[in-house]
Amino acid sequence: MFFETFHQDKNSRARTGVIHTEHGDIETPSFMPVGTQATVKSLDSFDLRDLNAQIILGNTYHLHLRPGEDIVAKLGGLHKFMNWDRPMLTDSGGFQVFSLGKQIPPLLGEGQGVEFRKERLAKIDKDGVTFKSHIDGSTHRFTPESSIKIQHKLDADIIMAFDECAPDNVDAKYAREAMERTHRWAKRCLEYHLSSPPLYKGRVREGYRQHLFGIVQGSNHRDLREESARHISAMDFDGIAVGGESIGYNMSATKEILDWVYPLLPPDKPHYSMGLGLSPLDIFEVVERGIDMFDCVAPTRLARHGMLFLPPLNKGRAGEGYRINITNSRFASDAKPIDKNCACHTCQHYSRAYLRHLFNAGELSAMRLATIHNLHFFLDLMKQIRAAIAEDKFLKLKKEWQSYAKN
Amino acid sequence: MFFETFHQDKNSRARTGVIHTEHGDIETPSFMPVGTQATVKSLDSFDLRDLNAQIILGNTYHLHLRPGEDIVAKLGGLHKFMNWDRPMLTDSGGFQVFSLGKQIPPLLGEGQGVEFRKERLAKIDKDGVTFKSHIDGSTHRFTPESSIKIQHKLDADIIMAFDECAPDNVDAKYAREAMERTHRWAKRCLEYHLSSPPLYKGRVREGYRQHLFGIVQGSNHRDLREESARHISAMDFDGIAVGGESIGYNMSATKEILDWVYPLLPPDKPHYSMGLGLSPLDIFEVVERGIDMFDCVAPTRLARHGMLFLPPLNKGRAGEGYRINITNSRFASDAKPIDKNCACHTCQHYSRAYLRHLFNAGELSAMRLATIHNLHFFLDLMKQIRAAIAEDKFLKLKKEWQSYAKN
Repeated sequence: MFFETFHQDKNSRARTGVIHTEHGDIETPSFMPVGTQATVKSLDSFDLRDLNAQIILGNTYHLHLRPGEDIVAKLGGLHKFMNWDRPMLTDSGGFQVFSLGKQIPPLLGEGQGVEFRKERLAKIDKDGVTFKSHIDGSTHRFTPESSIKIQHKLDADIIMAFDECAPDNVDAKYAREAMERTHRWAKRCLEYHLSSPPLYKGRVREGYRQHLFGIVQGSNHRDLREESARHISAMDFDGIAVGGESIGYNMSATKEILDWVYPLLPPDKPHYSMGLGLSPLDIFEVVERGIDMFDCVAPTRLARHGMLFLPPLNKGRAGEGYRINITNSRFASDAKPIDKNCACHTCQHYSRAYLRHLFNAGELSAMRLATIHNLHFFLDLMKQIRAAIAEDKFLKLKKEWQSYAKN
Repeated sequence: MFFETFHQDKNSRARTGVIHTEHGDIETPSFMPVGTQATVKSLDSFDLRDLNAQIILGNTYHLHLRPGEDIVAKLGGLHKFMNWDRPMLTDSGGFQVFSLGKQIPPLLGEGQGVEFRKERLAKIDKDGVTFKSHIDGSTHRFTPESSIKIQHKLDADIIMAFDECAPDNVDAKYAREAMERTHRWAKRCLEYHLSSPPLYKGRVREGYRQHLFGIVQGSNHRDLREESARHISAMDFDGIAVGGESIGYNMSATKEILDWVYPLLPPDKPHYSMGLGLSPLDIFEVVERGIDMFDCVAPTRLARHGMLFLPPLNKGRAGEGYRINITNSRFASDAKPIDKNCACHTCQHYSRAYLRHLFNAGELSAMRLATIHNLHFFLDLMKQIRAAIAEDKFLKLKKEWQSYAKN
């Protein structure tokens, strides 16, 4: 069995469960750190193990361009390539190629978009997308089949159908066209995936397979979103993702879309929100809407800018909000750890004053230590959320965090 | 006892010994990784512990400017500040302030110089040096007393006298002036050091003290170098360093200077070469000349540029030289570790192909993994050298490495 649900919260759509993969289990709801280029920026795979991350994400667009799926395959697939023996997920590359030419907020762009380009670099036709590399301008092409083929070579446990990530507010006519194209492509991905012989021989585990997820699109049109949710849910996917330009970037639209599609998603398959906002509070919003897994660049990206997350207000920490900018001069001689109750490597061993110094002096070690803390914070919050759901106290926990954020 | 010698090589001046400090022992000859700004670039103190580094170096000039010695003192000294409980050494800041305005080769500059500046930023008088910060242009002043005072606040186990690091090839008149100033300053440093009450209260160890080293100067004039060696050796320092613009930057001058001064240095005190070239072969040159400790930026700086060290030629590694540029395309799908016999974290867990990818993709983790390997390489070579000296096989080992470098 790929997915089991354990407990449905009595007061919301939040639920706990577990995804079984050949590289281990993923407790849900699950936060997936983003490892765009076969590395979570500034960390190595042992750091991720020490953090007890259960799954990480890789980006097909980036890995296709660099180092290329053939090199990864030659090295034995992504797991061996980066020496990570726990579950992985790759996206289809769709989000990135459709983002080429669009402005992605830089703070959110990591692993999900590429830098802002004025000229439009991607061209779509009925069979796929032709696009130019943001690295060297070379021309590439993704089709549903080629995206799956690349993801087969990368060999993550969970792979994604190739979809058209149309802009949010396109008119209903284009939004329908894009959605129908996504549905045709979903079918082609599934057919290609199910008919492909296994690429890797001599696997450690007999019966290893990659699990393919479909993606619900439909821009910000309720009727299309509902139609897409029905359509994708009826297909033979292992899980259902909700994609789109707004997902994660615009949390009020994200909440609305998740509310629309929830009643139509199969409860026996994992639900994946392809993005999340900048705040830990956004986690509560998607989990409350029945989401089992999500990726989020905020903890890693913000860490590299010295923005460090803090848990709800404790005594003596008034005025710190739910995150601090460690480069602030008020931390210059602060001997306390980022968070005195945090069990992460950084909080156990280094002071705010030291971290501030490392950031101010432009030292690389600052980024790693900050990333370790922020990822630990997100992973620990997921633990708390799973425990709260199990006791039907999810909404209580949410309320605590919300009231804290207002302080 | 601060310093013990164990074995004098029968065929050279190389010797083994141990320096005892309140934070632990340093086996000599010892290589000291450079931790300019209270961090060895890209690593944290646990990485250094895993590498079994026995001592690291901090730079007074840099730490004075950022974060400032008062902040470090408030946090309990450098050891506590960076959570490093093994021996440390700080330089006096002399090298850096005298380098202001001079061109330091960028590849060698880390921790030992600052970036190239056209205008001369340092002004010397009989009592000290007034200089401008390379960070913000603010004016600062070091005197013999203030340098020691700063180093007391930083609280490293070994501290250095404030010297004038005059250019190599100044005329004999200026060279003598500078040397005599260095000697007067050495006396003032020693007097200030010995008469200062301990700054830190409540130390863990009773009787903790900082050990002050004097520095031999004299530019590239044999008579002055000999005079300086005699003069500094006659003073009540705990160790004797050989400084100067050439030391480490110009290996043929370094060798010549070390040959001049060796017979005049007290054998019962550690001898410190304040710098080393770019090659592991240079280690043999200074150790052969009776040097017990040296610092070197090559392994860390080169690592961050993807230059990785390799031990002597093994079968099947023809043509690789003693270091490789891992960004080279020939490593694109090379599944081997950097060095199959290396026990470092990087070689034990990651392939050349993966490291090449990380460097090519501009990933921060590349620098840490490369730094770990290069430091392990240098530290391991020191182990081999100490073992060879103990068996009177130092010159044999040197010859092996030299013949290898020619392949």
